[in-house]
Amino acid sequence: MVSRKQKSIGVFDSGIGGLTVVRALMSRLPNENITYFGDTARVPYGNKSAEVVRTYAIEDTQFLISQHVKVIVVACNTASAVAIDALRHHFDIPIIGMINPGAVRATEVTRNGRIGVIGTLATVASQSYQKEILGRNKALSVVSKACPLFVPLAEEGWSEHRISQMVADEYLAPLRKESIDTLILGCTHYPILRTVIQRAVGHDVLLVDSGEAAAGEVAEVLASTGLMNESTALPNYSFFVSDVPQRFRELGTIFLGTPQMRVTKVHIP
Amino acid sequence: MVSRKQKSIGVFDSGIGGLTVVRALMSRLPNENITYFGDTARVPYGNKSAEVVRTYAIEDTQFLISQHVKVIVVACNTASAVAIDALRHHFDIPIIGMINPGAVRATEVTRNGRIGVIGTLATVASQSYQKEILGRNKALSVVSKACPLFVPLAEEGWSEHRISQMVADEYLAPLRKESIDTLILGCTHYPILRTVIQRAVGHDVLLVDSGEAAAGEVAEVLASTGLMNESTALPNYSFFVSDVPQRFRELGTIFLGTPQMRVTKVHIP
Repeated sequence: MVSRKQKSIGVFDSGIGGLTVVRALMSRLPNENITYFGDTARVPYGNKSAEVVRTYAIEDTQFLISQHVKVIVVACNTASAVAIDALRHHFDIPIIGMINPGAVRATEVTRNGRIGVIGTLATVASQSYQKEILGRNKALSVVSKACPLFVPLAEEGWSEHRISQMVADEYLAPLRKESIDTLILGCTHYPILRTVIQRAVGHDVLLVDSGEAAAGEVAEVLASTGLMNESTALPNYSFFVSDVPQRFRELGTIFLGTPQMRVTKVHIP
Repeated sequence: MVSRKQKSIGVFDSGIGGLTVVRALMSRLPNENITYFGDTARVPYGNKSAEVVRTYAIEDTQFLISQHVKVIVVACNTASAVAIDALRHHFDIPIIGMINPGAVRATEVTRNGRIGVIGTLATVASQSYQKEILGRNKALSVVSKACPLFVPLAEEGWSEHRISQMVADEYLAPLRKESIDTLILGCTHYPILRTVIQRAVGHDVLLVDSGEAAAGEVAEVLASTGLMNESTALPNYSFFVSDVPQRFRELGTIFLGTPQMRVTKVHIP
């Protein structure tokens, strides 16, 4: 029987992108066990209606809770944007999304008050980051841009490929013209393309990785609720997916930066 | 009450790509009415299990039959690869897929017997074209290559963009080295990128558009079953989708080459 402190951090995403959030958690909280669920049978969430995404997010959370987790990280910007309130209503466990931590971090670090947001078509259309930022400070200005090719480029493994650089230059030129000094990576795939994104916007622009910001919030929540794992044993990482695990394993190496992954297929719901 | 001849050609796809097949049908059979269903709520099919895709394909076909069609065109390579036998078993109506017409056309036009196939990861992994081609003539040789960035490039509207050209050059270099003389466009999105694909493989390589080949087969089936529409009235085109129609309408202009589309959202199944 594990103690409450030794329970895992539960993380879910529509697919593979949430692994960049796992990487941030591993780095920020190296003692913590992590249980990941990637809903690879129903990926992507970004083109589905809010109602459907809420149903999926509830099912994903239920699965993680059945695995005895102590906190839930919604490592998917779409699900964070449309389902976080429903999840907090349904479940009596701390739930941390991507939007709020990324938005808070951006408002803290901007100097000129001009913040850029990039994400999928769905995230950009939802204006979630914009609402969160302007809700905190109306004097800030937010410009956003959907970058639909970034996900397939990241999944192709073309992290620093010249084609990825050209795509980033093309997508981000309008944001550069707007003189932003801070750019939110509003999609969990985008940290894979960090180098080309940084070059495209210029090295004076600060990149905010929402996954890293969320890992910071998880640390705060665990500390404030007394749930931080104090064991110094090697942590345990478990990965579950809802469709055949082969491609998840292959891409996992790119996204997580580690070759060893124990991946299990489960049936959801 | 419409006569059997005046009934529509029913076409379904997981989303928008099948519109290139509609375009081929409009051009080959200008008197025919067409009813299209794009399963935009459940797109893409390419990363789902064969069992799930078969269930979806049956539901899509049922919907089209409820719209009084006289023939079904499976304008989706994944569904054609895994569901065509199940559809023919379930329904008593002519059903035409993408794989067989594309494969037959390629075997007819190749001179050196070296055929290339490009498609999504799922279509290439299924080896459907390869099996169909080698089943007809074992002396032929088939090389295939998945081109995952082509779908998002087509949906970005970058038909002749220099970035699309670079991606095509990179993907197709191995096929060029194999001295193919015929290349099957094994994904209904790819005709949108025809120009850059042709440049990448060289102008001596013949491109086989499976959608065009399928339109030819539809014409033969209608002629041989006496179902060709002889009315010279302006044909009627109806489009149905399973999720909000906005993006379908926007992309429809690129895929269909016509700005007027009547798109209705329906609930499936």
